[in-house]
Amino acid sequence: MTERVYNFSAGPAVLPVPVLEEAQRDLLALPGVGMSILEISHRSKKFDEVILGAEADMRTLASIPDNYQILFLQGGASLQFSMVPMNLMPAGGKADYIVTGSWSKKAVKEAQKVGEVRIAATTEPENFARVPHQDEIALDAEAAYVHFTTNNTIFGTEWKSDPDAGDVPLVADASSDIFSRRTDVSRYGLIYAGAQKNLAPAGVTLVILRDDLLARSPEGLPTMLDYNTHAKAKSLYNTPPVFAIYVMGLVLKWLIAEGGLEAIERRNEEKAGLLYDLIDSTEFYRGHAERDSRSLMNVTFRLPSEDLEKQFISEATKAGFDGLKGHRSVGGCRASIYNAFPREGVEALLSFMKEFERTHG
Amino acid sequence: MTERVYNFSAGPAVLPVPVLEEAQRDLLALPGVGMSILEISHRSKKFDEVILGAEADMRTLASIPDNYQILFLQGGASLQFSMVPMNLMPAGGKADYIVTGSWSKKAVKEAQKVGEVRIAATTEPENFARVPHQDEIALDAEAAYVHFTTNNTIFGTEWKSDPDAGDVPLVADASSDIFSRRTDVSRYGLIYAGAQKNLAPAGVTLVILRDDLLARSPEGLPTMLDYNTHAKAKSLYNTPPVFAIYVMGLVLKWLIAEGGLEAIERRNEEKAGLLYDLIDSTEFYRGHAERDSRSLMNVTFRLPSEDLEKQFISEATKAGFDGLKGHRSVGGCRASIYNAFPREGVEALLSFMKEFERTHG
Repeated sequence: MTERVYNFSAGPAVLPVPVLEEAQRDLLALPGVGMSILEISHRSKKFDEVILGAEADMRTLASIPDNYQILFLQGGASLQFSMVPMNLMPAGGKADYIVTGSWSKKAVKEAQKVGEVRIAATTEPENFARVPHQDEIALDAEAAYVHFTTNNTIFGTEWKSDPDAGDVPLVADASSDIFSRRTDVSRYGLIYAGAQKNLAPAGVTLVILRDDLLARSPEGLPTMLDYNTHAKAKSLYNTPPVFAIYVMGLVLKWLIAEGGLEAIERRNEEKAGLLYDLIDSTEFYRGHAERDSRSLMNVTFRLPSEDLEKQFISEATKAGFDGLKGHRSVGGCRASIYNAFPREGVEALLSFMKEFERTHG
Repeated sequence: MTERVYNFSAGPAVLPVPVLEEAQRDLLALPGVGMSILEISHRSKKFDEVILGAEADMRTLASIPDNYQILFLQGGASLQFSMVPMNLMPAGGKADYIVTGSWSKKAVKEAQKVGEVRIAATTEPENFARVPHQDEIALDAEAAYVHFTTNNTIFGTEWKSDPDAGDVPLVADASSDIFSRRTDVSRYGLIYAGAQKNLAPAGVTLVILRDDLLARSPEGLPTMLDYNTHAKAKSLYNTPPVFAIYVMGLVLKWLIAEGGLEAIERRNEEKAGLLYDLIDSTEFYRGHAERDSRSLMNVTFRLPSEDLEKQFISEATKAGFDGLKGHRSVGGCRASIYNAFPREGVEALLSFMKEFERTHG
């Protein structure tokens, strides 16, 4: 195999090697089709198999009930920041947002263009080092929905259990931890996710939406921004991002073959556990996130000084560990270890971190 | 090489084999990078090279002036149907639309949600068998812009010279013939194109936009729908469709290596000429488009009966000619022969058509 580095990027991020190998093998012509997946019509029988197969596998993997639509869209979570309020918030309506990081804040900004936004909770005063406790969240029973971000890539925090929204539909931006652990889809009104962290290459956006919410979309929305358009057309109203959906299908098959969400959750807990155990065992590395909010996907940590952090990242890069620089809002380092990130890469980083502490500590 | 059929699909469509081969070779790890293009961060140095390289090559290929922005977006032409009026039509404003087919009509429908739309010309009464002559087009000098579709995939018609819009910005949906012939970008205010016919796999949308038009976007647009967002961020406001942009870059390099737009125009004229010459030489095949509106990209034709058409398509498919079924609005057959469609495939189809006529005529 071609030389590959350990890719700790926050997204786009590492994909499973068997998925890359299958995509590579068939890139000139899909078996029995005689064309590349990059060239096939989205109205072809073969692509029907691809997209319906991806949907079916996703329903199996995450036990998604029949009354939920699965939509394959474009524009990333950033476009969902607008589509969610445009579709789900009635004119003159209001919605509750729980703010746990930069992405939540962007979601708020777009929703404010559509209607009234209440901040039901925020941990910004603590530089988003944790997610709120349930008793800090003040929900409005009249809200059109409650929006939250399940995992915060920049700060390295993740909800251990979802906020309790009562009868108000819960809307989750799950871009960075979707299908990384067991989930009960029936608890949500809508889940959305840019694919480029845990699902696929960049270019496709997943929306899982409870049927009854489709009735909320007002008349006169731009056709492409109306969930009903895509639900009715089974994501084929216009040309979808064929290749990204195809790769997502391969990733879903890989997830099932690896043992499904329970197995992947255990593996993610072990991988993250290795790093957090090291961080907890020394004064040299300090975690940014509070213990009960620690993300299994993005491990954020600091070193004793910015100079040491710079040196750490530079030496790590040379040693084949890429993408460890933290986001400027937190500083320091961040190891993103999504589903496809291999355990041996975490172990190799651990050895590197121990050696770096020994020589620089 | 793996067995490949001749792919006459209207889009997604055939890509150049050398492009597919390079993408395949590097799919597990880009040389010197150690990660797949499907995994690299859009903030990485390598992706900067990819996207800036694609932009630079496009400027070279089509002599795009410096006062034009080149944006790599998502959502296809269908989302541009909304973004164009949302950005370019002031509140209470109006725009002129020239209607030459199904896509123009969809563009009109979305623009009507934003402001007043005048139909400056339409050839619908003739089932869109031609584009209008200049003297049939009634333009409004007060219009915010004039919108037209450069090539009509379904009907197989194409403008031989652009409508003259005077001082009103000309907006072109060039999804199906962009970079298939010489073009003078400075004649346009805005050109947009879904990539999946002549540029790249599905999943990226090209917008070429004259700088001064950016000032028109009103306050309060959804951030993702404001051209200014993407112009300011150089298409990196959020994660772009990395792989589709990478392949577009390879296609642009291929176009330059093949001799640029002048050479590709000549080649496209020759390829289409072969088919139109056959159609003109017999009563068995009849073209749908009028001669002076014939598309170089999509050759639409009928046979003496629907039964023969069915038989033709079925036998052609068995013989390795895929995607020849015409759109239901026209019926019959359609051969889409975009830039990357090889001349030998056209020649093979010609032989097949002659033989079919000999045995069924």
